[in-house]
Order: sequence, then structure tokens, then C-alpha cells
Amino acid sequence: MRCANFIVKKPMVIGHECAGIIEEVGSEVKSLAVGDRVALEPGISCGRCNLCKLGRYNLCPEMKFFGSPPTNGSLANKVVHPANLCFKLPDNVSMEEGAMCEPLSVGIHACRRANVRPATNVLIMGAGPIGLVTLLAARAFGAARVVIVDVDDVRLSIAKNLGVDEIVQVSTDVLNVGDEMVKIQTAMGSGIDVSFDCVGFNKTMSTALNATRSGGKVCLIGLAKSEMTIPLTPAATREVDVIGIFRYRNTWPLCIEFLRTGKIDVKPLITHRFGFSQEEVEEAFETSAGGGKAIKVMFNL
Amino acid sequence: MRCANFIVKKPMVIGHECAGIIEEVGSEVKSLAVGDRVALEPGISCGRCNLCKLGRYNLCPEMKFFGSPPTNGSLANKVVHPANLCFKLPDNVSMEEGAMCEPLSVGIHACRRANVRPATNVLIMGAGPIGLVTLLAARAFGAARVVIVDVDDVRLSIAKNLGVDEIVQVSTDVLNVGDEMVKIQTAMGSGIDVSFDCVGFNKTMSTALNATRSGGKVCLIGLAKSEMTIPLTPAATREVDVIGIFRYRNTWPLCIEFLRTGKIDVKPLITHRFGFSQEEVEEAFETSAGGGKAIKVMFNL
Amino acid sequence: MRCANFIVKKPMVIGHECAGIIEEVGSEVKSLAVGDRVALEPGISCGRCNLCKLGRYNLCPEMKFFGSPPTNGSLANKVVHPANLCFKLPDNVSMEEGAMCEPLSVGIHACRRANVRPATNVLIMGAGPIGLVTLLAARAFGAARVVIVDVDDVRLSIAKNLGVDEIVQVSTDVLNVGDEMVKIQTAMGSGIDVSFDCVGFNKTMSTALNATRSGGKVCLIGLAKSEMTIPLTPAATREVDVIGIFRYRNTWPLCIEFLRTGKIDVKPLITHRFGFSQEEVEEAFETSAGGGKAIKVMFNL
Amino acid sequence: MRCANFIVKKPMVIGHECAGIIEEVGSEVKSLAVGDRVALEPGISCGRCNLCKLGRYNLCPEMKFFGSPPTNGSLANKVVHPANLCFKLPDNVSMEEGAMCEPLSVGIHACRRANVRPATNVLIMGAGPIGLVTLLAARAFGAARVVIVDVDDVRLSIAKNLGVDEIVQVSTDVLNVGDEMVKIQTAMGSGIDVSFDCVGFNKTMSTALNATRSGGKVCLIGLAKSEMTIPLTPAATREVDVIGIFRYRNTWPLCIEFLRTGKIDVKPLITHRFGFSQEEVEEAFETSAGGGKAIKVMFNL
Repeated sequence: MRCANFIVKKPMVIGHECAGIIEEVGSEVKSLAVGDRVALEPGISCGRCNLCKLGRYNLCPEMKFFGSPPTNGSLANKVVHPANLCFKLPDNVSMEEGAMCEPLSVGIHACRRANVRPATNVLIMGAGPIGLVTLLAARAFGAARVVIVDVDDVRLSIAKNLGVDEIVQVSTDVLNVGDEMVKIQTAMGSGIDVSFDCVGFNKTMSTALNATRSGGKVCLIGLAKSEMTIPLTPAATREVDVIGIFRYRNTWPLCIEFLRTGKIDVKPLITHRFGFSQEEVEEAFETSAGGGKAIKVMFNL
Repeated sequence: MRCANFIVKKPMVIGHECAGIIEEVGSEVKSLAVGDRVALEPGISCGRCNLCKLGRYNLCPEMKFFGSPPTNGSLANKVVHPANLCFKLPDNVSMEEGAMCEPLSVGIHACRRANVRPATNVLIMGAGPIGLVTLLAARAFGAARVVIVDVDDVRLSIAKNLGVDEIVQVSTDVLNVGDEMVKIQTAMGSGIDVSFDCVGFNKTMSTALNATRSGGKVCLIGLAKSEMTIPLTPAATREVDVIGIFRYRNTWPLCIEFLRTGKIDVKPLITHRFGFSQEEVEEAFETSAGGGKAIKVMFNL
Repeated sequence: MRCANFIVKKPMVIGHECAGIIEEVGSEVKSLAVGDRVALEPGISCGRCNLCKLGRYNLCPEMKFFGSPPTNGSLANKVVHPANLCFKLPDNVSMEEGAMCEPLSVGIHACRRANVRPATNVLIMGAGPIGLVTLLAARAFGAARVVIVDVDDVRLSIAKNLGVDEIVQVSTDVLNVGDEMVKIQTAMGSGIDVSFDCVGFNKTMSTALNATRSGGKVCLIGLAKSEMTIPLTPAATREVDVIGIFRYRNTWPLCIEFLRTGKIDVKPLITHRFGFSQEEVEEAFETSAGGGKAIKVMFNL
Repeated sequence: MRCANFIVKKPMVIGHECAGIIEEVGSEVKSLAVGDRVALEPGISCGRCNLCKLGRYNLCPEMKFFGSPPTNGSLANKVVHPANLCFKLPDNVSMEEGAMCEPLSVGIHACRRANVRPATNVLIMGAGPIGLVTLLAARAFGAARVVIVDVDDVRLSIAKNLGVDEIVQVSTDVLNVGDEMVKIQTAMGSGIDVSFDCVGFNKTMSTALNATRSGGKVCLIGLAKSEMTIPLTPAATREVDVIGIFRYRNTWPLCIEFLRTGKIDVKPLITHRFGFSQEEVEEAFETSAGGGKAIKVMFNL
């Protein structure tokens, strides 16, 4: 069995999106107290390797990450975690919203790496969970205009409710690339500065590369395919840079700030809730896997 | 007939690597005088569009560039050119070296975009003219260690003479990718921070993507293929960024400085010289096109 | 007589904050048509010098700027101006708001140089016109929290109306520095990432330097004093960088976007309006100079 | 008694520039073995605070630094130190040179923060130990031209021997500022991109601010004065940024690389050597304190 690139050899606890209440603190911990409600950043980096010292701790080769073998995950009643990775939630941010800091962090980190700012026109390929958190993040970073593209009109209507400026429905047929490009560019109205491919198919990445203006950026987030066949050279000769992301770094405080001030509302992304009984857990996983109607499924104690 | 992406509809003058002697200056020109020996930057940008105002004038959509239709090139006895694109050559820099500022600028711009610095380990795929100027530039930017890869032992021996730290000979066979990766990594000895693909085949780009350390950069310079099939996603999830370049900007003063101080010696790259008689011109183009033994062919009045 | 650093030798037209209606366009102008309502960026850079080519055209030594001798200003019925410096106003942005792009650009450029972003805590010293446009810009760039400091409670109440998070009233007495620092830090609640000194006195700059967190930035905008006596070394040893600004670059499109979307409302800054009769003009200048109650005085045809 | 800003309350070991031989390693250490010759980076950061996680560990408020109370220093026969702060020396780099990584790191960090690169013209105010390591670093980063300024001709002649392009002798008299500026600018020949003030007096900082070209940087390293009276505003309005440094980060590997390749030779800076007998130690401190003829005094076991 596999979990992303990790091979799972024996039973283990999964899960890495969570929030909880402090039950006990170490003797030197000053920032937290018993009873505090906190959101947890799931990865513990070594703090000593070259990448940690350069400030890119998300790339730390010694990272211990909830649910990445051999480290157990957070789908549990209690976990032990370093204080500096537990972030206090303000009164007006719920535990469910706190748990949503994890997926939201992917969008935040992507927008930071792509330098989304108030003057930035943003194209998002894919309106699944990753596309939607990227949309929320791009809007919170002040993007001038956000256009989102998908094949599914239900997903697009959710994006519309979340405040995207324009939606463009496309097909999976590569023959339509030219027409769809015209629709996308019409929807944006001016040059696309940054494109996020939140899918990762040849077609989505090709569209992102071709649509982005000279000197812009394409950020690849979706992981559908490992090897891609794409028109990279024409983009490279227009100095369209292709950047990737691995998880996130230094994002929890900003996520919580966005949730506290209401600049981001993640509640519409929480579509289903379950308890921890075996029956409910099984139903939860079926809901999450099946049919695509669920965005985020939440477990509550 | 085509010249890169440009379709040539009628006879025109080609050529964009040149140096010359000032014969006449405009009434408001103060920086130049008749008799000055100058190297010419071949592209005239508009100075008014968004990309020019952002400092990325090489991407100017209004660029008029020697030899790019409809603009005539510099393979001529006389050209008219703006004073701010004519750079005086010091006494110890020859006109031939001045003309070499153009190809050298490609390497300089690539090293700047990839942020090559004294701590940087550099891998160069391809030891053709572009690979060699990138090598010269990377060394001048103080790269800690440069390894160059090619299939051709003649090219590799030229790279060796130009001061590369290690050479690695590979085949065109994709079956050898694994073994060749080991050879490359052994030759470098530690992590590869920046890779330049100066070829642009699927295999060279795949090697560059796989070989570069997490958080590093791959700069695509070679243009062999438009559509590429490459393992982009695994590189993206290690935050290996892919950057392209289009020509160069603000490079002539630095090229001339490198030539003046001897930090770069371009003379070994000038392998053939011809005059302007029709017979010699024809022989020159045959030399340049044929067999790969020529690196740079120079015309002298 | 002087205008900033420029000595005025003979009568000239002043003024550099303006908007107008296109009366005539050059034969090659495609972006504008007669009747278009436009805001004017007042400086014409050369587009050819090193600083222009590096993208820092605001520092161009050949700049021709409305009202900076020997260039006449824009307080006139008609002006001739390059098309690329005339920016069309959307229907919902008035000409008065268009003229406000100029002072607003100072705040925008300052926030860009200081890299104000959603996670940024901002301190602003001084709630005069420059402090207020910096406040508007910082909020539009998504600053997490903005605290503004002034001696004048009228100015502070205007800042409050413009949406600052906290105001701190201080005195001009240097003896109070310690107490005032405590008030400022209490008002912020956590570390100050970026401070803008919009006054430029020893006391304001000293407070800015001391209050900013290690690794933060102080941006000096106010020009009250040329020579300053300040605790620079303690700030330098905490890697607090001091950055200055000269006018702005590439700001008009973003200003207009902020005005169009309502992310910035400049109307409260326009406190007085006058016509072009001699009597009104004289009254306008007296209003602008006197008493500090005017923020921005507008002339309308 | 004080050590920089730290108050020394009881006897403690000082010293933070050192190299040594590994006597024992922890059970999980893989990068080092008994007998390895290593240079020691003297500060242990927490790896968990915001500044550490942002990659600016030199600003860590929890830093434990050799010889900064209450942490004992390295002027001892044995010290215990984390493996990731012990850097192996190549065979051709001596222990004395290894100890010099510490002062050299100040120059390296300053050049990195000021972005010294091959096109950069560098002015250095002060040819004391800090000025000299900055000179060595600037040359190793490929600075186009370096001019150094001091009042002392002995120091200037050392700088000359270390390869500075031009020396300028000045006085401490503020009346001479104008003439000296002309001498400095003549010595540089073109615009000064980066100035390092390695002294920290009003006069040196004023010269640095006035001499640097629009859009350049002044890096304040010298700590002679806490409060400075300087023409900051005219520099700020030319977008000359003032940056400070605190120690260094991520510099040891690069220092060792520069020493190994001979791009930097620190041996001329080691002017005196002593043993560890009480008599020699006292003489060493007198030598270091007195007269200014010593640059670096080395203790050897």
C-alpha cells in the first residue's frame, strides 16, 4: 500500500489536518496553556540541515510529518506535538476552521511563491479542493482578478459562490484547446500574470503555459501525472517561469489571521461531518472518495 | 523560409553579433565619438510598454532586433544604431571579442536569472556554443563547481580547456539515464544547485530536472524541441523551479568588463575567420552549418 | 525661490496631480481616443539610461516632471503628454479621484518597496496627507494591522475614519519617547514588521527605528529634515533596513484598480474644491498652506 | 564589565573565533569522525522561533553564542558543540585559516546582503580588520572594482597588498568632506553601487551615503557610534537603501570553499601568534589592544 510516495508496511494512523485542545504542556512551554484551542502544523523539521537554515524547512529531508510513514498521523484522540507547531485559535475561529488551516496553507504557500499581489491577474486550472483553497488565498492576497477553469459545472458554481471573478467551463478534449484559450483570455480581459495548475494533466498544464503572459509564472500544484508532455520551450522563451510547491511553510499564523478577520471563509468547503464511531469513519471515507460531491469531510469528537 | 519563429518573406540582411567603428554620431550624442570602437547590443526596445517599464525590456513586444524580420541585420558594412546600445571597447578588447558579447550575453543573462553565485554548484547539459558561453559565465560569476555533460568528446575537451571542473560523457540512449545520473552526481560530489539545459531534448531536460537538488533551479536555454515529455511533477514537488530566458538584458557592460579583466576569455570560441567576398561568405556559412567542428565563425572587413 | 531641490529662475506653471479629457491624439496612438477621461502620470523618463533599463525609471536623471524646473506643470487648461503616461479612468472613477492617483502612488510605491503583504504589521508615523495615503495603500495591500501615530487629534480622527486599526497620540517632547514606545507596542500587540516615517523628524525616525522588529524595515518618506540624528547602529545590528523612496513607478494602473473596486476610497481626502478664477486660486493656496485643516485641495475647470 | 551589549557579572571564558580537532562524537553524528579538523560556527540558534523558520537564524532571540554571557567562549582546550556547526576543513586549509572563517563570515554576510556581484562597484570606508575581510569577500564575490578609504597609510598599504583596486587616504576633519568625495569618485571612475561603512562615525557614514549612486546600497557594519548624525534624507530620496548586518548565517561552507580554492587568502591578516601560557596570553591581549599594528592575533595549542 502507498501513501503518496511512501510505502506503508504496517498498520498506522493517518490524518494530518487537525485542531484540538491542549491537555498538557511541557515544563518549558510558555506560549500555551492547558485548555487552549490550537491548530496543528503537521510537520516537524530538524532545524539543523542546510534547507532548514536557509528558511525552506518544508524541504527538510529529516521531516517527520503526521501520517507519512513511519510517523503516525493525527486522526486520533490525542497527539504529542511541539509547542512551536501549535497555534492558538482566536475565539471567533472554530476548531473545524482551525483544521482547515492545513489545506488552506497549500494555497497560501502557492500564492506566496508565485508572488500574488494586488496587481496580479490569476488563472486557476481546476476547481477541486486545491483549486478552491488557491482561489481563497489569491483573493486574500488581493489578486486583481481571478478566473477559474474546470470541466464540472457543480465545482464551478462553488467557485462562483466563493467569489471568483469569472468561471470558464472546458472539456477534456484536447481538440478544443484553441477555442478554450480564447474563452479564458476573454474572461480575464487582460494579461494573465500567474497561473496555478491545480490538476496536473497535460492539457491543464499546456493551457497554463500558453495562457500566461511573457514574464509571468505558472505554479504546478496538481499531481495527476508524473511525466508530462507540455509546450515548455515556447513558455521558457517568453520567460514564463514554472514553479512547484511542496506543502507549505510559515503559513499557520497568516491562515488564522485570515480566518479571524473574515478575509477568508473556509466554512463553505466543509461539506460533511462525522463522528469517530467505526461506522461513521467508514462512511466518511466512502463519502470522501466517492463521486466528487464532497469537498472536505470533517471528523469531530 | 524561417528565422526562429519569424517567417522571412523577402530578401533581408541577417546577423546580430557585431562590433564596429563609429563613423558618425547624432548631434545630441555625448557618450560616443567618431573613431570609437564599439560592440552593439542588437535589440531596440520601445522604452514605454509595461515590460520595458518593469525593467524586462528583452520581452518588449515592440522590439526591433537585427535580423529579425522586418528589421535588417548587422552583416553589413554600415548600420545605424542608437547610441545607448553602442558600448565602447577598452583598448585591450578586440573587435572580434566585442562581437562575442552577443552570445556571451546569453550565458550572462542565464546565470543572472538562475542566481549563480560563489556557493553555487552548476550542471550544464550540452557543450555546444551555448553550453560553452554558459560555462564561461558561470565561472565568471564564481560558481563553486561546474560539471558539463555531452555526447561528443571533442566538445567536452574544449570545455575542459575552458576550465570546467569535470566533464561527463553520455549517450543519446534513454536506457542509460540511471547510470549517467550516478556519473553526474559523482562528478559533482555534492548537491546540484542550478542546472542549465543548453540542448533542449527530453533526455537532457529530464536529467536536469532529476539531478537538481530540492529548492534548486533548472534553466532551459536549448530550443531543440517545442513540446517536451519530462518528469516535471517530481521536480515541482521538490520546489525545483524551471526558468527560461529570452536573449538578455543589461549585459554588454558586464561582458566588456569580464573581457577587459580577463575573467572571461572568448578567443578560444572563435574557430574560423572569413572576409566579406561572396566566395568567403559562402564558405563561412558552410563551415558554420557543417559537421559541428566550428564553434563561432567570424567575418572581418 | 525653490521648489524642493529645484531653483526657480523665472515664472513657470506648477502642479503635478491631475486628470483630464483627451482632446487630440497623435497619429500612432492606439490606446486612447478623443473624449477619454484619463489620469496623468507626471514624469517622462528617458527610457534609455541604465536606471530606466533596470526598471527603476523613477530615478532617471533625464526625467522631465510636471512642475519641476524647467518643465512646466499641469495646473493648466491643456497639456501635451505621452500616451503611455495617460491612463483611462473607468466610468465609476471620477476625475478628482483620478488626480488623487498621484499622491496615492507615493503610498503604493512605499508599500511595494517595503513589501507590505497580508502578514505585515505596519506602523505609520504621521497622519498628514502622506501618512494617510500610506495608510490607504497599506490596507489595500492587506496589511494585518496598521497603527498610526501623530500629535494632532484631528488628524488621528481622520485616520480612524479611514480604517486604521489603532491610533496613538504622542507629543513633540523627546522626553516622552520611552512611554510613547510602550503605547505604540501595546497598540500593535505583536512585532512591527514595517514602519513608515511620513514626517522625517529625528524623533519620528528614532521611534520608527527602535520600534521595528529585528529583520524588519523602516521606510523614510517624510522630508522634514535633511540631516538626521538617529539611533541607526542599534537598528542596523538588528538588520532593520532603512529604505527610501523617490516618487513612484508603475503605480497608476494599480491605483485605478483600487479606486474602481473600492478597495481604496480617496474621496475623504479631498477636503476643499476651487475653480480657476484668480480669486479662487489665491484662496486655494491659502487654504492649502494654512492651519493644517486641509488635506487635499482640488481645482476643477 | 561589558562585552558588546552584554553585561558580564562573573568570570567567564571568552573567544568565538576557533578551529579544532574532533575528540569525540555523539552516537547519532554521521557527518564527523574523531580526528577531523573542523572550524566552528559559534552561535547555536533555537531552530524553532519565527526568525529561525524564516531563514534568518542569526537574529534568533534564543541564540547561544560563544563568549556572549551567559554562554562561555571557545578560548579553551575543549568545547562541546553541535555537529551541524562543525565544518570539516580540507587538507589544504590550516586550523588558523579555519579560525579566520569567523571574521571572514562578517564580510561574506555583508556582501550577500548588499548583493555584491560581478557588475558591482564597491566602496569600503575603513581598512581595519572588518574593512579588510569585507574587501576580501567583495573581491571573491567578483566585484567589478573596489576602492577603500582610511586615514592610516599602513592600513591602506595592507589593503593594497590584498588586491584593492584603489586606495584613498582621508583625514578625520569634516571640513575636507567635499575634496575627499572628489578623490573617492575619481578613484572609482564610475558610479558606486554599494558602500560598506566599516567604521561607523558620522563622517564615514555621511561619505558613504553621499557617494553611493541612486538606487544603490549602504551597508553599515562598523559600530563606533550608537547615535549618528547623517544626511539620511537626501540618500533616501535617491532610493539609496541602508542595510545593517548582525554577525552572519550560512557562511562557513562558502568561507571554506574560498580558502580551499585560494579565491581568498586570509593568511596576511594573521599578524601575531601566541601560545596558551599565562604570560603569552597577557602579551597577546596587549598586542591586540595596542597601537593598531596587529590585525588578527592567533592562539595555538
